[in-house]
Amino acid sequence: MTKSYEQLTTAFLRIYRFEHLQAIIGWDHATYMPPGGSDARSAAMGELAAHLHRLRTAPELGPLLASATRETLDETALANLREMQRVYRNSTALPDDLVHEATMAGARCEHAWRSQRPANDWAGFAVNLEDVVRLTRKQATLLSDKLGVSPYDALMDRFEPGMRGAEVDRVFGVVKTWLPQLIATVREQQATETVIAAKGPFPLATQKALCERVMKLLQFDFDGGRLDVSTHPFSGGVPEDVRLTTRYSEDDFENSLMGTIHETGHGRYEQHRPRALLGQPVSEARSMAIHESQSLAFEMQLGRSRAFLELLAPLLREYLGPQPAFEVENLVKLYTRVRPGLIRVDADEVTYPAHVILRYEIERPLIEGEIEVDDIPALWDAGMMRLLGVETKGNFKDGPMQDIHWTDGAFGYFPCYTLGAMYAAQWFATMRKARDLDTEVARGELAGVFDWLKANIWTAASLYETDELCRRASGGPLDPAHFKAHLEKRYL
Amino acid sequence: MTKSYEQLTTAFLRIYRFEHLQAIIGWDHATYMPPGGSDARSAAMGELAAHLHRLRTAPELGPLLASATRETLDETALANLREMQRVYRNSTALPDDLVHEATMAGARCEHAWRSQRPANDWAGFAVNLEDVVRLTRKQATLLSDKLGVSPYDALMDRFEPGMRGAEVDRVFGVVKTWLPQLIATVREQQATETVIAAKGPFPLATQKALCERVMKLLQFDFDGGRLDVSTHPFSGGVPEDVRLTTRYSEDDFENSLMGTIHETGHGRYEQHRPRALLGQPVSEARSMAIHESQSLAFEMQLGRSRAFLELLAPLLREYLGPQPAFEVENLVKLYTRVRPGLIRVDADEVTYPAHVILRYEIERPLIEGEIEVDDIPALWDAGMMRLLGVETKGNFKDGPMQDIHWTDGAFGYFPCYTLGAMYAAQWFATMRKARDLDTEVARGELAGVFDWLKANIWTAASLYETDELCRRASGGPLDPAHFKAHLEKRYL
Repeated sequence: MTKSYEQLTTAFLRIYRFEHLQAIIGWDHATYMPPGGSDARSAAMGELAAHLHRLRTAPELGPLLASATRETLDETALANLREMQRVYRNSTALPDDLVHEATMAGARCEHAWRSQRPANDWAGFAVNLEDVVRLTRKQATLLSDKLGVSPYDALMDRFEPGMRGAEVDRVFGVVKTWLPQLIATVREQQATETVIAAKGPFPLATQKALCERVMKLLQFDFDGGRLDVSTHPFSGGVPEDVRLTTRYSEDDFENSLMGTIHETGHGRYEQHRPRALLGQPVSEARSMAIHESQSLAFEMQLGRSRAFLELLAPLLREYLGPQPAFEVENLVKLYTRVRPGLIRVDADEVTYPAHVILRYEIERPLIEGEIEVDDIPALWDAGMMRLLGVETKGNFKDGPMQDIHWTDGAFGYFPCYTLGAMYAAQWFATMRKARDLDTEVARGELAGVFDWLKANIWTAASLYETDELCRRASGGPLDPAHFKAHLEKRYL
Repeated sequence: MTKSYEQLTTAFLRIYRFEHLQAIIGWDHATYMPPGGSDARSAAMGELAAHLHRLRTAPELGPLLASATRETLDETALANLREMQRVYRNSTALPDDLVHEATMAGARCEHAWRSQRPANDWAGFAVNLEDVVRLTRKQATLLSDKLGVSPYDALMDRFEPGMRGAEVDRVFGVVKTWLPQLIATVREQQATETVIAAKGPFPLATQKALCERVMKLLQFDFDGGRLDVSTHPFSGGVPEDVRLTTRYSEDDFENSLMGTIHETGHGRYEQHRPRALLGQPVSEARSMAIHESQSLAFEMQLGRSRAFLELLAPLLREYLGPQPAFEVENLVKLYTRVRPGLIRVDADEVTYPAHVILRYEIERPLIEGEIEVDDIPALWDAGMMRLLGVETKGNFKDGPMQDIHWTDGAFGYFPCYTLGAMYAAQWFATMRKARDLDTEVARGELAGVFDWLKANIWTAASLYETDELCRRASGGPLDPAHFKAHLEKRYL
């Protein structure tokens, strides 16, 4: 008689293989699919999603998960069983009808948003968003009962298992005490700086070659991955075949390059998930914040450091031709420019947390029923003024309509961005204790960084809960002081 | 109570959507997948194939198919039911174990062949091929009992429903009476011709732009399709999103361009399968020979005609720069060059049937147990000498080891190539009765050709059996005289 645990691993391996199809098909959808293929593709992807839902909620899984807990399992198997239970619980927690209704409302809201946003049509958007919020609250209440946590925490748990609003309040509360003043000080300092802008045009083929060259420097494995183009850059595919995307503009190489470095962080995490465990939930990346800690480790901690820019400068000259903007001193200024602005995705490292805190402070009471959709614009304006000193009144399209997240009900996701920045700072602070990282990096020795990340984060995958992962890697729980110290060292 | 027929259409629509995933994933596998993704991809594709097999052999389909025959159905539904029955019969005809064993043997043989072929290792190849032949014979016998036709015919029926060896004998028998002499005469005539070769290099990006320009001329719909690169060019994807591939070489634009024109014929057939019926088996392309009749209609009947080359000449000069080779008179010579050679895929229109007849005359007795694998090389040498006057002794890699088809058990496929060439000639002979096609084409008016193909072949899909399709389109059964007349007109 096969052990229940073995039967579970077989079932999850099958799920993994269908998820492979979903990942590659999704990548194609975002990169190469011509517009006319859209309807047939949606139908096919819908069929696949329904099949995956059936596999994840198969009636035999419940009894197998229960009996597996009584079997003798090693530590890895126990962690895998815990993650299997999480997948099963998340998949069975909500009635199919409600999930379907919410998916439809989200698709409708997102679809309309694509034209409502450019038209600055808040009133039209609000009607759909109310529907999304109503259905998300319903789901949050049901999940809350299952998990025994607050409705908002129950939503956040989908992206960041174990993270709670109280903890977010703790770390964001600290950040709010020093962030506005830090921004003001940095702005004042930078006001007198002279920064030379790079002069284009930069041919797209050259930019692509440069991006791939830098990915190689960052040890991305091209035998098991690629770089392509999409409107919204992402890291997709599967651990064995990681598909990164970026976007190019002839006038500007900075966005494509830093975007590529960012996605390469996500990509290397995926490429180094434990090979022997692939196919099992325990091999999954730990959480969205931990994933973001890898992209930000690459883009912010490493990519915008003076040491790394010393490596980058000769490559820029080699690929794009020499120009004054590519001197290291100037690159440092270019890549650490702080500019409060309206748009989160364009924000620099220092002002970014303000965008996230603003959204967190709106979405949490919105889900918990303390405010309504109609209250959002005024709260947004007040928050932007308070946190960044930026006026947004009446500009909905660059205000509360700028992000896709809320349109399809992804409430509880935003905190992961800034938690990720904090984890990244904590990883680098830990590494720096043991070695002279900047000297190594400037010499082109990146093995120290990558070996540490590989040992402590990538191959650890979901073997530990996030809090334990953090303690094992850095010796303590998440501490926003590392993030503050990093920003002060780099920007003051 | 839903009619059985309605329930069947729902089941087949689901199959169609999973086939969509299979087609796009297969395209990715052949175009963009990095080598390291191969193992995980094979596992995922195997899982999908197994799932599709389960859907096509679902226990409820048998009773539904039986009861649907007693329902009142219109002509289209009856044709659809006939095609559903075909799919179900083909999917359930063989025991799963045997199919699995044969698939494994085929994969092993094909994999080894990839290195055995360049090494000219017939002895090593023969060991695996014997296994493939043994298992294919087993399958052929079982299919033969089910269908009440000979074992070889049962295999051919998978690719060319309704086609029988007796019919192939009839048409190939006629061809053999005139082909060797025709080749000899054309060779003699062309021996004194001066042909100017085009001078490269031809940059790959320019070739791609030229290919896409010619695809537009051929009215390929880029809103629902693309052109990419693969080692072995093919037409893939789905009717709503057709994925063509070609391959480029800097020294030579002719292969990529004519290859693209060939695939565009396949692609337009797919793009014009009846939209309202997509998702149902009746909307499928009729057969492999009919499919090939479209690619050859584009490449041979249209693409290498003097009238079409008059359209092509200015495009070649525009994209590749003017040179003497691009004069129409020279292009006609270039594109109608006849050269008996060893390799089927490099063969011209006149010698190609000899390659196919050779293979047919070996694979049929091989399947029916009249000869064995060890007999192949001698038969091959004798056939090549008799049909093409070409010496192949000891050159296995450019002899019986050159094709992929036998390695994975696709016996019964080869005749489709030449049957397709004959159908294509018959379609054009029919069109020419009603209009002055060459004058129209030379003027750039291609609508006559495309409208005829669309009305008679593309939108007819699988509404009729092949023989009826042919009669409705051309007024009679397949007649190799049209092919002969075409070759004589063009080459003598």
